Amino acid sequence: MKKIIKGGTIITASETYQADVLIENEIILQIGREITDNVDEVYDATGKYVLPGGVDVHTHFALPMAGTVSSDDHYTGQKAAAFGGTTTTIDFVSQDCETLTESVEAWHQRTDNLAVTDYSFHMNITRFNKDIGKEIPSLVKKGITTLKVFTAYNNRLRLQDGEILQVLRIAKSAGMLTMLHAENGDVIDLLIEEALAAGNTSPVWHARTRPAWGAVEASLRGCALAAQARAPLYIVHMNAAGEVDQLEYARSKGLPVMGETCPQYLFFTEENLDQSDGAKWICSPPMRSKEDNLRLWEGLEKGTIKVLSTDHCPFFFEGNRPIIYENEPVMIPGKELGKDDFTKIPNGLPGVGDRLPILWTEGVQKGRITANEFVALNCTNPAKIFGLYPKKGTILPGSDADIAIWDPNKKVIYGVGVAQHRTDYNLYEGWRLTGYPEKVFSRGKLIVDGSTWYGKKGSGKFLYRKPFAEIL
Amino acid sequence: MKKIIKGGTIITASETYQADVLIENEIILQIGREITDNVDEVYDATGKYVLPGGVDVHTHFALPMAGTVSSDDHYTGQKAAAFGGTTTTIDFVSQDCETLTESVEAWHQRTDNLAVTDYSFHMNITRFNKDIGKEIPSLVKKGITTLKVFTAYNNRLRLQDGEILQVLRIAKSAGMLTMLHAENGDVIDLLIEEALAAGNTSPVWHARTRPAWGAVEASLRGCALAAQARAPLYIVHMNAAGEVDQLEYARSKGLPVMGETCPQYLFFTEENLDQSDGAKWICSPPMRSKEDNLRLWEGLEKGTIKVLSTDHCPFFFEGNRPIIYENEPVMIPGKELGKDDFTKIPNGLPGVGDRLPILWTEGVQKGRITANEFVALNCTNPAKIFGLYPKKGTILPGSDADIAIWDPNKKVIYGVGVAQHRTDYNLYEGWRLTGYPEKVFSRGKLIVDGSTWYGKKGSGKFLYRKPFAEIL
Amino acid sequence: MKKIIKGGTIITASETYQADVLIENEIILQIGREITDNVDEVYDATGKYVLPGGVDVHTHFALPMAGTVSSDDHYTGQKAAAFGGTTTTIDFVSQDCETLTESVEAWHQRTDNLAVTDYSFHMNITRFNKDIGKEIPSLVKKGITTLKVFTAYNNRLRLQDGEILQVLRIAKSAGMLTMLHAENGDVIDLLIEEALAAGNTSPVWHARTRPAWGAVEASLRGCALAAQARAPLYIVHMNAAGEVDQLEYARSKGLPVMGETCPQYLFFTEENLDQSDGAKWICSPPMRSKEDNLRLWEGLEKGTIKVLSTDHCPFFFEGNRPIIYENEPVMIPGKELGKDDFTKIPNGLPGVGDRLPILWTEGVQKGRITANEFVALNCTNPAKIFGLYPKKGTILPGSDADIAIWDPNKKVIYGVGVAQHRTDYNLYEGWRLTGYPEKVFSRGKLIVDGSTWYGKKGSGKFLYRKPFAEIL
Amino acid sequence: MKKIIKGGTIITASETYQADVLIENEIILQIGREITDNVDEVYDATGKYVLPGGVDVHTHFALPMAGTVSSDDHYTGQKAAAFGGTTTTIDFVSQDCETLTESVEAWHQRTDNLAVTDYSFHMNITRFNKDIGKEIPSLVKKGITTLKVFTAYNNRLRLQDGEILQVLRIAKSAGMLTMLHAENGDVIDLLIEEALAAGNTSPVWHARTRPAWGAVEASLRGCALAAQARAPLYIVHMNAAGEVDQLEYARSKGLPVMGETCPQYLFFTEENLDQSDGAKWICSPPMRSKEDNLRLWEGLEKGTIKVLSTDHCPFFFEGNRPIIYENEPVMIPGKELGKDDFTKIPNGLPGVGDRLPILWTEGVQKGRITANEFVALNCTNPAKIFGLYPKKGTILPGSDADIAIWDPNKKVIYGVGVAQHRTDYNLYEGWRLTGYPEKVFSRGKLIVDGSTWYGKKGSGKFLYRKPFAEIL
Repeated sequence: MKKIIKGGTIITASETYQADVLIENEIILQIGREITDNVDEVYDATGKYVLPGGVDVHTHFALPMAGTVSSDDHYTGQKAAAFGGTTTTIDFVSQDCETLTESVEAWHQRTDNLAVTDYSFHMNITRFNKDIGKEIPSLVKKGITTLKVFTAYNNRLRLQDGEILQVLRIAKSAGMLTMLHAENGDVIDLLIEEALAAGNTSPVWHARTRPAWGAVEASLRGCALAAQARAPLYIVHMNAAGEVDQLEYARSKGLPVMGETCPQYLFFTEENLDQSDGAKWICSPPMRSKEDNLRLWEGLEKGTIKVLSTDHCPFFFEGNRPIIYENEPVMIPGKELGKDDFTKIPNGLPGVGDRLPILWTEGVQKGRITANEFVALNCTNPAKIFGLYPKKGTILPGSDADIAIWDPNKKVIYGVGVAQHRTDYNLYEGWRLTGYPEKVFSRGKLIVDGSTWYGKKGSGKFLYRKPFAEIL
Repeated sequence: MKKIIKGGTIITASETYQADVLIENEIILQIGREITDNVDEVYDATGKYVLPGGVDVHTHFALPMAGTVSSDDHYTGQKAAAFGGTTTTIDFVSQDCETLTESVEAWHQRTDNLAVTDYSFHMNITRFNKDIGKEIPSLVKKGITTLKVFTAYNNRLRLQDGEILQVLRIAKSAGMLTMLHAENGDVIDLLIEEALAAGNTSPVWHARTRPAWGAVEASLRGCALAAQARAPLYIVHMNAAGEVDQLEYARSKGLPVMGETCPQYLFFTEENLDQSDGAKWICSPPMRSKEDNLRLWEGLEKGTIKVLSTDHCPFFFEGNRPIIYENEPVMIPGKELGKDDFTKIPNGLPGVGDRLPILWTEGVQKGRITANEFVALNCTNPAKIFGLYPKKGTILPGSDADIAIWDPNKKVIYGVGVAQHRTDYNLYEGWRLTGYPEKVFSRGKLIVDGSTWYGKKGSGKFLYRKPFAEIL
Repeated sequence: MKKIIKGGTIITASETYQADVLIENEIILQIGREITDNVDEVYDATGKYVLPGGVDVHTHFALPMAGTVSSDDHYTGQKAAAFGGTTTTIDFVSQDCETLTESVEAWHQRTDNLAVTDYSFHMNITRFNKDIGKEIPSLVKKGITTLKVFTAYNNRLRLQDGEILQVLRIAKSAGMLTMLHAENGDVIDLLIEEALAAGNTSPVWHARTRPAWGAVEASLRGCALAAQARAPLYIVHMNAAGEVDQLEYARSKGLPVMGETCPQYLFFTEENLDQSDGAKWICSPPMRSKEDNLRLWEGLEKGTIKVLSTDHCPFFFEGNRPIIYENEPVMIPGKELGKDDFTKIPNGLPGVGDRLPILWTEGVQKGRITANEFVALNCTNPAKIFGLYPKKGTILPGSDADIAIWDPNKKVIYGVGVAQHRTDYNLYEGWRLTGYPEKVFSRGKLIVDGSTWYGKKGSGKFLYRKPFAEIL
Repeated sequence: MKKIIKGGTIITASETYQADVLIENEIILQIGREITDNVDEVYDATGKYVLPGGVDVHTHFALPMAGTVSSDDHYTGQKAAAFGGTTTTIDFVSQDCETLTESVEAWHQRTDNLAVTDYSFHMNITRFNKDIGKEIPSLVKKGITTLKVFTAYNNRLRLQDGEILQVLRIAKSAGMLTMLHAENGDVIDLLIEEALAAGNTSPVWHARTRPAWGAVEASLRGCALAAQARAPLYIVHMNAAGEVDQLEYARSKGLPVMGETCPQYLFFTEENLDQSDGAKWICSPPMRSKEDNLRLWEGLEKGTIKVLSTDHCPFFFEGNRPIIYENEPVMIPGKELGKDDFTKIPNGLPGVGDRLPILWTEGVQKGRITANEFVALNCTNPAKIFGLYPKKGTILPGSDADIAIWDPNKKVIYGVGVAQHRTDYNLYEGWRLTGYPEKVFSRGKLIVDGSTWYGKKGSGKFLYRKPFAEIL
């Protein structure tokens, strides 16, 4: 089975050029001019861009959270991603069982038969002891080469610094990458306690009790631990100007440290939480200030920040609607859980489908980043850092045919009616976009064609990732 | 009783000028030309400098430490200070008793009748709870306006970040200053355990198990907590280049944070620990590298670092010599305690008497800092920051007559035979100095005249310091 | 003849303390408590500050400029200065005659019999050749130790880079300091020609034709030439953020370079020129932007910029009023000269009297700088850098009794009716000030007492300055 | 005529992947797996890298210089380049004739029939007036889209700042890029005059009379002029640490400024000139210090410097050897011209063939840059910035088949016997290299195969470059 995408302009992390793409079954076979093979299907991409499918390394589908669960299961979440041009997602396995193996297994069971595009897992390490330490390297054989640790959420997810150091060292010798959620758990707990005691329960207090300076120092703390372990580190969802400063500082000292930010941190501020529907913007870490937005953009432009991800973890603003979730009819609560207490608002936002369209318009169209940088940030860099390259994240002979045909002239008024996330709101409601995915292929199969969906549950494959991946 | 110091060149933090100093009893009464009062004593300072007596805000006299005690008691320590031109010292009260009041009282009992020059106390907060929190502000009335906290020494001295935040806030509202020992306790404990398990017991492992990155991140962590508390912070014994970077960063963001370094961190490196007598250089934090030395100098020169102190805490290299200690004959062990295990080496160095002579030669003579900056770093700034100004740290009418007449041409081959610390070695053995104190006055009394000592036990007064002192 | 100022709080560059000041004739004799001399006059300064008289190293009295002359002659200018607390001014000698000696002589003739406070001269070097080069060192004996060069005003004032290098070297070996007016003459000339050709004649085009980037590069160019000559350099009237960046950069590389800014560059912007009375704000270099204002403040706060001066060079907004100028009745034109052509607007502003009151309120009262820093910037640093210290710029025994008794609580609504400059407008019209000079002494003589003037023409003395002055 | 390069690993600026390259005539037709076309030639690249041919945007073939000419004519120079993997060179047209058109024509006549690989020209603007200004845009039609200006070489090559500003503006509106030789001509002339007068005639005085600070300030000056013109600028042969600082500064302010360095500035210092054969290292700007080497490396690693070029301009160390030059037998003098006077030493070095092999070993092998960054710096970035992309500088369908098959394991002891430049020495004599070009193709023709040369005079084509090229 051969297909050809003809006449488009291919965009990679460094190149922009016209060529045809010949796909055989699931793989890109050739890229060239005048490809004369007999093919079964021809897609005309004249006047369009041909981009690698997006790689989103930070998603939370079907994540249980205090009394509810994120509203996209693996099927609806990956489908929403695909409509936005993203064809690979990496989710986090909670350390829910006694062994990591069991925890991973449980996550596979919830995912594998729902997946429509290719996916992989990170392993959260939120409880550490010698046995866990010994088990960690075995994850590599299971295709899991990345771990996540937290300096916040005392008594729930947080590891002590000494434990993080040990995780970093184990990861280092196994060729794994450690990811860090950087906030100061002590400070947060104290501020939350005081806020509640003072009757400060509205959504904006979520931001006020998670100060940016905590994120800043915890980022440097992580870098210092990485220095000590001589291990690579990846700071997730960077949100504060000072984090960019510190990442730049640590990198200038030669440390193998990297970071991502998410679209929401580029556009929104604490003020968004100080509205009647502020709960919609509740995620952790929280929105900061205009200055933080700008410094994060600068970090992207200068190449300090290497990846854009989403931390997709949606909830209904008004929940308890009848939905089909993991093939079962259910009703799940939403943000209203916290209407009298911001600490009870489920933490998280929709975003997996927004990333590429929003960044194209705000980044490429507005001249902040080039189209090549767009591909690097959203596709190639994450694929390289997370051991998926060159299978994912680029358009090359031999790569999986995960491709988005992008119409740079398409005008869209964006919002909840366009985005396919399963939730009742969208952060970018009413934004005017120029440039949008027209067709999306996953391993050679056309799964999105305009507004038509051809994806099939279970067709997504788990990606066994390579250890000792690139450090950018 | 009136005295006059005639013909000298007075040096303050900003001025260098010729004038006579008229002292009445303990106080400087007038500074001027042609002072014609009848005086009881005349000291000719022609061709000499007249400096404020040094203020050393970081000393540990008579400090108990695992099986021994620092070898200078309050008498010998203050005497050694005086011979080096320093007339005010501030020691740390260990939180040994249930209440802070009791702990302070105990420290007074060991100090008051031994003191020969004026002194004050900081309070260590190494155990925190609500009662301690409530008691802290009461220290102000006892003349104690400064607290010290630690991010290292788990299970002994360390407070958790949330506790430090609370201390900072209490301090803030009481007008007190919090001082921070910045290292990462978790990392240190892990590295020590591993070093010992691997049979690495020599002194250099002291440095290798207390990495600089830990000091760097803990410094920023402290600044972040200070930002959160809107409270001033003072980082003690800065030793790593990165700490200067981070202090500069935090100050550039407008935070009320300050720092000190000590002479030992300007000259020595980990290599000094890697010698047969490496134990002599054991202190915490440890010596670092040449690059760190240089960056600390730069921090002094540019004004990022505001104070030079000593962290004086001497031990004999070979202990168990018969000495009179706190008026009792005793024999106390020394560095030999750790000859088979670096963790058993008492941590600390002599230095209280070295500070001024060493810095004069290495700083002023060599053109790294001006004589005015020398006075600022060693006298005026510490007096201002620690609530002693203008009583101490400067030469002004109304100030205490704590004065060093400095001979800028005096050549000294320095070392243990010159320094008056009670220990059997000196870090600066054989260094050639130019410039040395000739006469030293404490509240108007001549206590040092060349090599002659006129000081009297018990003549030193406890200094009740002012809260809400300057933030420089 | 003895006088005493009693009960005030003396403020110097590093100290704040209560003491009495005993003046004998022109000199401060003693500073102290309980001074019991018989004195002729007693001034009570209880509750007041006692500051050194201001030192303004950048004034242009009686400066001829295209068809007119600056509206303050040496008498009215120094008088206005004194009312604002400034008791020393340094003016610039134009290189109008064949020899420097003749030029200096001419300037003395216009100044000496008008001076009411002490003053000195800088020498402009706007034409360079071997003879001039040989003559320069002879200025030191005439008390002139500072030279000014320009990179702008092609064919009028500008020296070529190679000439500036030669001036720097000559200055270096004679112990003189070179001052630099940093703008790019080529760029300015081109832009002015184009603006006029395009009919752009309004005042704002003055700013638009003198771009900040020219000042920035010329500042670094000056520093580079100073590096080459190993000579100190002083950048006058810093006005652009980038100049602060570059000065900081050059200083961090160890270059002996310093800079001043003027109050007008801290508060005003190009927008002030874009008003109907924009001509009032015309000076060179021009006002910049809000960002530049802020960066200059930061430069003052961090100590990058060492001096505040005024570049006082006033003109009437509406000239041709009958005045007594240099003892003659005249009418001189003002800013109206350029009403149809911004290049014909006389360049310059009033300011010599505004500096201290404005900076006290905006700097000290508003917490941007301390009172000690205020004294350092306005009095002590300029006196040190320009070879007047400790005679001027501080309050010390032996110093000239140039003193301002400052009332920190005095409220003034400032403006042309308060300032004593001879012009018809003030930049700070209507500003509400807190803190103002109450009495001003020049070499012991009371010359200003509230609104009463006791100064006498000719009583000011020319200050022979010292070469090899301090480099801060 | 079809050829295939099979089994190699293709390296581009962002990708590293295995694929075959199908070439039809002069163009890359397809890249893929399992290309089954009938082809005329097959090249096995298994275990080898397939790189784009190098693009060297800074060469001086056949450049007349005071009494001699650079020893490589266009034929030998391009041949030497090809042996080192470089297949595109851009030379500079001297402004020798009255019109630019005539100057370009003259350069074509010396080049066109000698060229063996593709080439283009920059135009030097060393004399500026209105007529030249009007003629500049016409160069675009001649394929010349880049101009070079100098701030050094007074009275020979230098333009005044105002002229440079005008060139920048004209370039901007024509879509051309201005290149800057940044040194301070005034300072150099003065220092040279003094050095010669003092009898300082040895080669090291070449470096001592061209100080780094001049390069630093002239770089910022260029950036400031570019800012004023809103035009792109490209700083050639960056050689001083401070130039990197200033380029970084200017870029951080959003200016469209870029820069290149050359291998010689990464490895050598002024000390190389202070040897008996110091003349070998004479080029302008000169070698600097170790610190400069390191900062330039850092600039490459961090992406501040975007291009590596060579400034190839060789001379014999001992000239007057019989050679065939531009098809004529001649004897040309060499470096010996200046044996008694450094100012008479022809300025320039061999390098066009060294660039890729040296940087591969020192950059890629030693882990300072990745192989992708190597391609970006040496091939893709210069092609993009200079309007040759994607025809040159990358490996893509549709690009010219300029390809180097690179053997990453090849060990070479490098030196004059290996490099093919026509001169009698090599800067890297005896250096041990790992990684070397094995086969080189120019527009599909195999021209280098190991040590065999298949190139033909006249087969190189002049490259008409595109205006409005990318600004990186």
